Amino acid sequence: MRLSQSFFTTLRENVKDEDSVSGNLLVRAGMIKKSSAGVYMYLPLGYKVLKKIENIVREEMDQAGSQELLMPALIPEEVYVASGRRDNFGSSMFSLKDRFNKSYVLGPTHEELFAVAAGMKIRSYKDMPFNLYQFQTKYRDEARPRYGLIRVREFIMKDAYSFDKDEAGMDVAYQKMFDAYKRAFDRMHMDYKIVRADTGVMGGLLSEEFQAVTEIGEDVLVLCDQCSFASNLEVAPCKDEGTDSTEAHLPKELVETPNARTIEEVTEFLHEAANQFVKTLIYNIDGKPVAVMVRGDREVNETKVLKLVGGLEIALAEPEMVVKATDAKVGFAGPIGLHCPLIMDLEVSHMANFITGANKTGYHYIHVNQEDFKADYTADVRQIMEGDTCPICGGKIVFKKGIEIGNTFKLGTKYAQAMDLEYLDQENKLNPVWMGSYGIGIGRCMAALAEQHSDEHGLCWPINIAPYPVAIVVIAKKDEQQMAAAEQLYAQLQAAGVDVMLDDRDERPGVKFKDMDLIGTPIRLTVGKKIGDGLVEMKLRKAEKAEDISIDNVVAKVLELIHQGE
Amino acid sequence: MRLSQSFFTTLRENVKDEDSVSGNLLVRAGMIKKSSAGVYMYLPLGYKVLKKIENIVREEMDQAGSQELLMPALIPEEVYVASGRRDNFGSSMFSLKDRFNKSYVLGPTHEELFAVAAGMKIRSYKDMPFNLYQFQTKYRDEARPRYGLIRVREFIMKDAYSFDKDEAGMDVAYQKMFDAYKRAFDRMHMDYKIVRADTGVMGGLLSEEFQAVTEIGEDVLVLCDQCSFASNLEVAPCKDEGTDSTEAHLPKELVETPNARTIEEVTEFLHEAANQFVKTLIYNIDGKPVAVMVRGDREVNETKVLKLVGGLEIALAEPEMVVKATDAKVGFAGPIGLHCPLIMDLEVSHMANFITGANKTGYHYIHVNQEDFKADYTADVRQIMEGDTCPICGGKIVFKKGIEIGNTFKLGTKYAQAMDLEYLDQENKLNPVWMGSYGIGIGRCMAALAEQHSDEHGLCWPINIAPYPVAIVVIAKKDEQQMAAAEQLYAQLQAAGVDVMLDDRDERPGVKFKDMDLIGTPIRLTVGKKIGDGLVEMKLRKAEKAEDISIDNVVAKVLELIHQGE
Repeated sequence: MRLSQSFFTTLRENVKDEDSVSGNLLVRAGMIKKSSAGVYMYLPLGYKVLKKIENIVREEMDQAGSQELLMPALIPEEVYVASGRRDNFGSSMFSLKDRFNKSYVLGPTHEELFAVAAGMKIRSYKDMPFNLYQFQTKYRDEARPRYGLIRVREFIMKDAYSFDKDEAGMDVAYQKMFDAYKRAFDRMHMDYKIVRADTGVMGGLLSEEFQAVTEIGEDVLVLCDQCSFASNLEVAPCKDEGTDSTEAHLPKELVETPNARTIEEVTEFLHEAANQFVKTLIYNIDGKPVAVMVRGDREVNETKVLKLVGGLEIALAEPEMVVKATDAKVGFAGPIGLHCPLIMDLEVSHMANFITGANKTGYHYIHVNQEDFKADYTADVRQIMEGDTCPICGGKIVFKKGIEIGNTFKLGTKYAQAMDLEYLDQENKLNPVWMGSYGIGIGRCMAALAEQHSDEHGLCWPINIAPYPVAIVVIAKKDEQQMAAAEQLYAQLQAAGVDVMLDDRDERPGVKFKDMDLIGTPIRLTVGKKIGDGLVEMKLRKAEKAEDISIDNVVAKVLELIHQGE
Repeated sequence: MRLSQSFFTTLRENVKDEDSVSGNLLVRAGMIKKSSAGVYMYLPLGYKVLKKIENIVREEMDQAGSQELLMPALIPEEVYVASGRRDNFGSSMFSLKDRFNKSYVLGPTHEELFAVAAGMKIRSYKDMPFNLYQFQTKYRDEARPRYGLIRVREFIMKDAYSFDKDEAGMDVAYQKMFDAYKRAFDRMHMDYKIVRADTGVMGGLLSEEFQAVTEIGEDVLVLCDQCSFASNLEVAPCKDEGTDSTEAHLPKELVETPNARTIEEVTEFLHEAANQFVKTLIYNIDGKPVAVMVRGDREVNETKVLKLVGGLEIALAEPEMVVKATDAKVGFAGPIGLHCPLIMDLEVSHMANFITGANKTGYHYIHVNQEDFKADYTADVRQIMEGDTCPICGGKIVFKKGIEIGNTFKLGTKYAQAMDLEYLDQENKLNPVWMGSYGIGIGRCMAALAEQHSDEHGLCWPINIAPYPVAIVVIAKKDEQQMAAAEQLYAQLQAAGVDVMLDDRDERPGVKFKDMDLIGTPIRLTVGKKIGDGLVEMKLRKAEKAEDISIDNVVAKVLELIHQGE
């Protein structure tokens, strides 16, 4: 590609409306441009990167025996009503009416349509297994689009769906996809972790996330400093230390705690440590109050609570609900004399002589013990914390931030049952199909790679991801010898199958070098004065220094570097 | 691809809701499935066909120096308001609001966003020319989706846009695209015509259409049986015979024509031929009446009329407007004593002693001549007809039906002016950019090819378009020798780079043969009993008969056929 005859445009400065390193660099490098909030254009250089990522994923999907197809984005709303998901998506789904006033949505994920397609083929157990995938544009009306390509409203997703006659088949299909994903992300040179996750609106039996490790990640990854334990914060289990306090139980005592309602105020007033306090939080779960007890220095994990009680929506209760459930103002809730179900965190179940609210405004109990109240559930409902003991080994928990770039779901028979996707087994009995669902966000991969592979000068793409692996920069365009050598190199590299960029613009060398660094060209070949001695300067984007090499060795050297970077 | 382990499904019978050969065959062959009115899923086999068409187009675009990118489909409505096209598209544009009540549309074509992207680069005349393209999903809320993939509401279009500093540059860019289109359609084995067309809502200086010739085409192609003249009916010019009638002009005469108001009734009543009658039609153009005179046996071409007067919308006037303009009931309009502008067709301007309405209910004039009235415009406003003389040579006009598969527009500076896309010329003066716009409907190409390449047994794809160029059918799956030979052939063909389908299903040979004919596999290799003699049956989809060939020659023969079909 000759730069002088191409669409190429870069910006020197960061742009104001991009709040991430990747967003800023991709815009500055002329790879993307914001069209509206959370909606981007992929410009020619950026589109080449996107396609390289897409092709890696495509090759791994094909290799794993999945078949590509293409679904529409415009889907009758009734399809999601039938599967029961219309309400789950709520206002995050773009909806519209056609000229005949029929309701449509823009698909956010396609389990339903794939189940329809699968139903065309599936009659008996002999018609499975199979696996289908697509690269398709999806839509989610995010409340807060941000971080460039990371939280967007229109995006390209690779989504795949497996269809099997039983759970064992689903497990095999799942493992194949899981392995294909690992290979794909490895080939992209992505730094990622695989974590357990909540199944969320997808439902199903198991969800794992592929998380790119970056500083701007919106997800918290819970990792062990010793073993391979990895979980999304939402579902990270806490280790049950399992041993009850050996302290002798004292009788509970009502104490007046005027003007003290926060843990800090109460523990200071009573001269106690926060971890001797047990806080009781009143939640509103699907319109009803539920109390949750955790140690004073802990946080409640709302995902765990919701799962425990089988609820749909959770939020802290409004004051009126708290008063009704506790007979006291906010700040004095406790386990004794409550008017709502009570969940006790496992850790609390091992404590003795602790402090709680007294369900009486201005009062707390001290020396509360297990025999003083009855919990409806005792379970792990607290948020894991950095420094906690790993639930698997004796290691310490550390947190990292991640961008979700892929996810895999064992859906079980949920969608098949909702959509009557059934098959006849060997006894001629009808059974629901077992499905799996597997997604990769292609634009997110591009953003995550840009976050991981960049420095103060710009992007540093891996050689198999960069828009062009090689650029030839001519120092003096008007110098005939330089230009002839550059043209010769350009022709030789093209003949060798290398997608090479020739920076033949009428610009100063400094501008060209800055641009090549900004767009992240892995190999820069500079043709300058030394061409008189048959030398070309080769500078690797990730290397400190340049080196002079003979023009005769350039093609072989470039091919070697490309081969190494595959 | 092993059929036994793939998504593959066919239907024996035509489907009721498909009204075209291509729609029916593509659905029956399991290539597409209707999701909702005018919205289709591309299933794995169909998607392969789509991709092959796309890749041909991509190769020709790249070859022509265009650069690929990707625009969003979700576009703020204000973008089309700014360019003045929001009203032009009207209800054919899907529109929606996001969660913040901001108005968006789903893009039907992308001149506006490409002008924005071009504006990032263009500062001076040195920044041009360049050419950008994309394959992207577009949306139009068609009032009557039909003919399978031909008139749809969600579709993949290749759209390209050229940017030049002057008209000469635009012409060069246009010609490059025009040539690339011809190569692309030739490579697809498309039977097509290139016709002049109306610029329509696109505006601009020139529009040409690439029309696939098929029986279900919605467009009428006007062709000459002698020369290369080709035009869309809407804009086909009529030959001006140019010689006035030599008849002596008689004085006009008012005659009572009770109960006669149609041409048939009047000419019968007066014992005259229809071509001696001149009809005067009253149109409502943007709310105002305009009269148009054409010979009694001719039709008015409304596109020509609209262009002549520079109007936006045209329809026959409602009765009240006719009465106001003519002082008579509908059926008696004529050129003499009209109260609205009058357009006379060129052909009428050469006539003498003709019959017209008298603008008086129940009366006509006979022996009307040019001196009896004054037309405001005399121009070619009639519809060309089959059998007419070609406007270029002496040949005869014939009609064919076409499906518009591509179009090319010289847009001039229209969009640049609307969107302030300007550059500094060598004198440092601001000038608008000259644009061209070029589209190919990828799904329509697939439908048109299916219409052109099919017979009573199903599809007959060209070998470079078929989902799989070759299929191996095993007669007796349980026969070890047959299965081993088939497997060997399968491995050999794959090793030779051939994308081959192995029909290893547990079905009767007749079912397999029918399926292979239906999906249009160009080369069918049957492994049956003759394998004992080292023979395989080779049947070409388009050939009458099969032939036996030695298994050792199969790979070479297949490669030769594939090479011929490129």
